[in-house]
Formats: sequence, C-alpha cells, structure tokens
Amino acid sequence: MQILRYETYKQNAVNTEKATQLMQRNLDEQVLEIIRAVQEHGDEAAFAYTKKFDKADLSSLLVSDEEWNIAFDKVKSEQPALFQALTEAAENIRQYQRRTKEEGFQFSPQPGIRLGQKITPLERVGVYVPGGKASYPSTVLMDVIPAVVAGVEQVVITTPPRPDGTIDPVVLTAAKIAGADQVFKIGGAQAVAALAYGTESLPKADKIVGPGNAFVARAKKWVFGDVAIDMIAGPSEICAFADNTVPPSYVAADLLSQAEHAEDAASICVTTDAAYAEKVQKEVERQIPLLERAAIIRESIQTNGKIIICEDEAQAIELINTIAPEHLQLMGNNAEEQVEKIKHAGAIFIGPYSSEPLGDYFAGPNHTLPTNGTARFSSPLGVYDFMKKSSTIHYSKERLLDYADTIITIAEAEGLTGHANAIRIRKENNDASS
Amino acid sequence: MQILRYETYKQNAVNTEKATQLMQRNLDEQVLEIIRAVQEHGDEAAFAYTKKFDKADLSSLLVSDEEWNIAFDKVKSEQPALFQALTEAAENIRQYQRRTKEEGFQFSPQPGIRLGQKITPLERVGVYVPGGKASYPSTVLMDVIPAVVAGVEQVVITTPPRPDGTIDPVVLTAAKIAGADQVFKIGGAQAVAALAYGTESLPKADKIVGPGNAFVARAKKWVFGDVAIDMIAGPSEICAFADNTVPPSYVAADLLSQAEHAEDAASICVTTDAAYAEKVQKEVERQIPLLERAAIIRESIQTNGKIIICEDEAQAIELINTIAPEHLQLMGNNAEEQVEKIKHAGAIFIGPYSSEPLGDYFAGPNHTLPTNGTARFSSPLGVYDFMKKSSTIHYSKERLLDYADTIITIAEAEGLTGHANAIRIRKENNDASS
Repeated sequence: MQILRYETYKQNAVNTEKATQLMQRNLDEQVLEIIRAVQEHGDEAAFAYTKKFDKADLSSLLVSDEEWNIAFDKVKSEQPALFQALTEAAENIRQYQRRTKEEGFQFSPQPGIRLGQKITPLERVGVYVPGGKASYPSTVLMDVIPAVVAGVEQVVITTPPRPDGTIDPVVLTAAKIAGADQVFKIGGAQAVAALAYGTESLPKADKIVGPGNAFVARAKKWVFGDVAIDMIAGPSEICAFADNTVPPSYVAADLLSQAEHAEDAASICVTTDAAYAEKVQKEVERQIPLLERAAIIRESIQTNGKIIICEDEAQAIELINTIAPEHLQLMGNNAEEQVEKIKHAGAIFIGPYSSEPLGDYFAGPNHTLPTNGTARFSSPLGVYDFMKKSSTIHYSKERLLDYADTIITIAEAEGLTGHANAIRIRKENNDASS
Repeated sequence: MQILRYETYKQNAVNTEKATQLMQRNLDEQVLEIIRAVQEHGDEAAFAYTKKFDKADLSSLLVSDEEWNIAFDKVKSEQPALFQALTEAAENIRQYQRRTKEEGFQFSPQPGIRLGQKITPLERVGVYVPGGKASYPSTVLMDVIPAVVAGVEQVVITTPPRPDGTIDPVVLTAAKIAGADQVFKIGGAQAVAALAYGTESLPKADKIVGPGNAFVARAKKWVFGDVAIDMIAGPSEICAFADNTVPPSYVAADLLSQAEHAEDAASICVTTDAAYAEKVQKEVERQIPLLERAAIIRESIQTNGKIIICEDEAQAIELINTIAPEHLQLMGNNAEEQVEKIKHAGAIFIGPYSSEPLGDYFAGPNHTLPTNGTARFSSPLGVYDFMKKSSTIHYSKERLLDYADTIITIAEAEGLTGHANAIRIRKENNDASS
C-alpha cells in the first residue's frame, strides 16, 4: 500500500480528473436495444433476456406467495441467528428513517394569504437488488425500508434469478422483513426497462433505486427523466483519518473490508504522523493474506489504496473535503470536533469502534451512499427519496388585487402579456363591479 | 378548444403514452461534440460556440463589475416600478424558501450510541437563464434565491449574450437582487459543459439548474452523474378544476396564459358541469384574438387544449392525479377540501383569485416545477436542491462489542468476510485485553 505526501497526491489527482458520464458507445447500444425491446414486447422480451443472460427459463416473473413463504419459513427455522440479525437491523433502519420523515407546513404571511408545502409519498417504487453468485439481504433492507416508511403504496423488488429459476431465500426473507409488496425474477437493463415503462407482469414505477452492474447503471441513466432514479453508483470508497491513539490493526481491517468489494474500490488512510503511516502499511500487508478474498483485496489495494500524510489536521480536513468520500471514518482523538469541519461525505463514522461494517449492516443510517466524489452534491438514500413536495398558494380577492399591478409589471417586462391579462381580467372585473 | 368526456380522454391518453428519454441520435451527436470540445479546449471552445450560435464575438465571458453596476443603476432609475416589483418578489421568495430549510439532527437510541444527520450546502451552483429575444428576470430570482438561502458559497449564472455581446440589463439587475456572485455570457450546451467540467473562466459547478432549450436539456442529461442537475424540463402545463361559482373568463384567461408559453404547452380545464364547459370554451374563443401572442396561443389550444367533463368530484380528482400537472388551480367551491385529495402536482393554486401568474412572479413558492407528469416523483425547485445530507454514526466500544456477533452474522451471510473481520478484530482485541 503506497504511502505519499499530500502535495504529491494533490498533483496526481488533478491530472486524472475526467468526465465519466459521456457516451459509452458499445455498452449504450446494447443497453438501448434491451430497453427498446422491453418497451415494445413487454414480458416476452423480459423472458427472453432472462433466459439469455441469467440462463433461467421462467414461466412467471413474479415470485409467488407460496415460494416466498417457503423461503421465509426456511430461513427462519434453519438460520435463526441470521433471521434475528436481519430483524434487528431492520428495526434500527426503521427507527432512523422515521426521524428523517419531513412534514409539510402552512403559514400566513399576512391576512388573506396562505402559503404552504404539501409532502406526499411516491406511489410505486422499484428496488433493484443485485444477484448472481452473491446475495445482498442488507441492500434489500436498506433500500426497501425507507420507501415503506415514506408511505409508498407499492414497493417491488427486481433481482436476477439463479439458473434454476429460484431466488436466494435469504433475499426473499429480507424482502418480507423489510415490507416489500412483490418480488420479480428479472435483472440487468431489462429489469430497469420493465420498471421504467411497465410490462404485462411488472407495474410501471415512479422511481428506480438500488445498485447494479454497468448495464443496470447505464439503463438507469437512459430512463432517467421518464422515471426518477436514486443515483448512478460508482466504485465504493473509504477514507479513514487516524492517529496513534487508534490501533493500526483496526484501521487496516477497515481499509481491507472496503477493498474486498471490488478491484476498483478505493481505500484511503489519512494521517499527520509518518511513523503511524508505516504501522498501518505493515498491518495491511500482514492482514491481506489472512483474508478469504485476498486476491481482490490485493489488486484493489495495489491500484487504489493510499496512505496520505498531511502536514496538520487542517490540511487533512481539506484533503477529505476534496475527496468527498462515500464512507469517512474519523477515528482519532479529535473526531468529535472534526465532524463540524467536514463539508462533504456520505456517512461519517466517529471514533475507533464505529467501523464501517457497523453502518453497512446494522446501525440504521443507509448504506446506499454517494460514491466517487458525488457526496459533494448527493445524500444517502432516505425517506426523502421516496416523497415529493407540492407548493400551495392561496390569495384572497383583496390580496390579489393589492398586488395585481406588481404582478402585471413583471409579466409585461417578460413579454408574457397573456399572464398579465389573467391578473388584469380579475382586476377590471372587480373595478367594474365595485 | 376541444370538450370531451373523461372516458374518452382516458382512452386517448393510454394510447399516446411513450418513452421520451431515449436516444435522439442527431441532437445527441451535436450536443456530445460540443461537450467534448469544451472539455478539451475550455474557454477557446466557449468563445467559438458563442460566436457561432449567438453571433457574439466576446473578449471575456464574465460580466464585469462595471457592466453589472451600470445595468443595475439603469434599471433602478429608468424602470422604477419594475425594480420595485422584482425587489418585492425577491423578498417573498426569500421568506418562503427560508421556511423550507431543513436542520440536521442527532439522537441517542441508547447510551453509547449516537446517530445523526448533518445537512450542508453545496459549494458551487450554476444557474442557466435562457436568453435570446425574451428576458426572464423571474427565472433568475426563482433559481438563484433558494441557492443563496441554502448557503451555497458561489452561485453563478450563465445566459446567452445578445449579438452585440451584452446581457439584458433587467436580467443583470435581477441577478444582483437575488444575490448571484457572477454572471457569464454563455448559453446552450456549451454553457452546461463549461459548468459541468470548468474552463479557465468558469468554475466547475456541483449542480446545474434552470430551464433551457433542447440543447440545454440534452446536455444536462449527458453530464448528469458528473454533476447534479435539477430536472429535465418538458412542455409547461396547467390544469384548472372549476365549477359555476368561478367566472368562466377567469378560467379562460388562466388557460390562455399557460398557452402563450409555447405551441406545445398544455392547458386543461376539468369540470363536472357540461354547461359550464361550454361557457369556458366560448370565453377561450372570445379572448384569444384579444391577446398579443394569439398565434402561439391558438396553436397550443388547438393541439393540446382540452376541457374534460367528469362525472363527479371523485372522478375529477382521479383525473388530476393521473395528469400530475405542473400547475393545478383548484378554483371551485370545495377547493380547500380538494387539496387534501391531491397526490401529485407541482404547485396547487387555491381559490378563484390564486391565478397561476401570481405564483410565476410573486407569491414566493418556486415557479420551477416538475412538468409532463413528473410531479409523480419530483418537487418544485427549493432550498433542499442546494443542500445534501451526511449520516453520522458513533458507537462506543461497549455497544459495538454488544452487537459484534450480529454484524458478523450478516456480513458472513453476504460472503463479505473482510467486513466480518473488521468487527472481529476489535472483538478479539478486547477479549484478549480483558
């Protein structure tokens, strides 16, 4: 794991900054073909792509109640510790999300005027849950529960089936614990298209959330506008700011936990202590071979792992705000005071025992977080992603007439005389009748 | 203006539903070429496109302080009524937006655990203001003020210059009243690209907001992900629900005010009274020739104008929620009670005197609203568009150890053993030291 000074890091970072969202011709053409096919042929295309990509020959996309209940009962009886853990995690997530639920308001700036904001849930939400070899019950909890807390009427999950046409029972169990309404056996760009435009089996969603592979991410970008999406997820990253009050083995283990996600995950340690940097580096080297996913981890750490030495705390905070990390661990002595100075981060873990997996699985705040520097302008997934606002405006006759000339003046300055007319016709009607 | 029954409308609506966001090959190729050129050549490309599209040969993209002050003083002295109107409108917008500013929170679900949400403003925002023949000072106020109220450090405006290289003094005046930091003479896809990726003159923005033509809308779609955007604006629409307590001339004038925006704007009147529908229709015909923008209005009304007769209030509410209109006027007798039943609308205008232009120019709630049915999942532009959230998580050593096994259980079920290790290493370290 590379150790470098802040100035060196800064120089390199500037040189590698680039656009990531422009056309990816080859991928886009495949994705657009899938979207068009699903739009035109609905379920027929959905079945065909599921056979092609997931090797599953289905007769129904919907997980039946029977299938769902059997999976639930099986996990509950055969994996009681896991069942209990998911149930506890779900309760923590519910408790946190309830606190973030906003209420509307009304106020009267003067008699005869009432303004307000009405907040209502979305009607239908689609949650994409990755499948394949791995199983992500935590993603089910994290993405479904905020929608349920928001009051969404219909929360459906799409997830790619296994070749035998089944879905991992643990995912189905998490779906029931979280309160999802339906689960569909479909993944990839075809799932995104089906949610965006609807098919015979799948209801058209108002918003699509959840992580996925490159096909899923590009499909979400394409349907964005016809339907809302949460964010375009990039590689995951962690930034741990530590000092010599923190056991280097903790820092190393946290960095490596992030690295095991994928080769392109980024693990960064920030410190002001050069001797400490070396201790963390040694611990990283010591721990890698002990881990199951050592190959992925080594690749990730070699390519994107960095320990950056800063002059002082102020420089370290500046660095962190430049990175705008998805996960930020403030582990050292001044962690509490440092929180105030952080401008951009998805989730902030405070103190040496708030290890990132605590947030990934259990504490309550969402683990679906803005990646790749987008914490500069994005938030964790939350109840607010599943609600929207309407303004309300009520002026009495008297108040409208008071301000009629002011409104007409601006409308006419913009050349929108029809707008001016709508106000003037009320004014003249009341002048005439008075 | 066509009068039709709800059932007929419903049938037609289903048949015309379609995807709008897929590839528009010709437009996209032009837009992508512009974006790439601005990324590669910065200001040089910005100057070249401004010369090509706006016919303006500029030596500086930035509006100088001198130019800005002269424009401001000129409008203040030569158009005092307009200056006063914009100042009053700005104050109303500020007052409303301040009410929508959310605060963070912290709570402790049990001793040793503290969870929270930190809310921080974006750093740099770009506001696109359309130019050309028309001038939109109200857009400047509506888009800049929420960003300023949110606490954004740097709010810059981009707007296409006139061929002589100047910007409308009224736009510059509104920019100063609203509190913008800088104004740049650049429009189109080149402005969006410059804001998304930065040039020598323009700072890279974290979010780009504001309406624009097809080039602007597509460019925003392409850069989305590298930078946040507000929404992809479609044609504007109004839906007015009225009964015979409302003068038909008011309803007609409101419908026509919307129609003057563009040929593709949609004006819809909903009523349960067939005789009233005919009165509104007659008023529409009577008023069109009296309006300055009669040609646009007639085209818009003929193509997209509709008076829809519903069986009863319940059916009318169902229709409105299906349309999810950008602007909804509840004008009739039960307006107050109806508000509660509305699920989807950008802004709701209550009572016969809350005419839409009141909201466009003066009342305070934003006039940048979700169009084209996207009120199903989007909100008016607001302070919340210029702030983002970070979760905070703090567990003490004791609490982490209490839940260590639970967290490890879920991590291992997902096959993420490195995650399990980060918790286990803390557990074992403390078992050993105790």
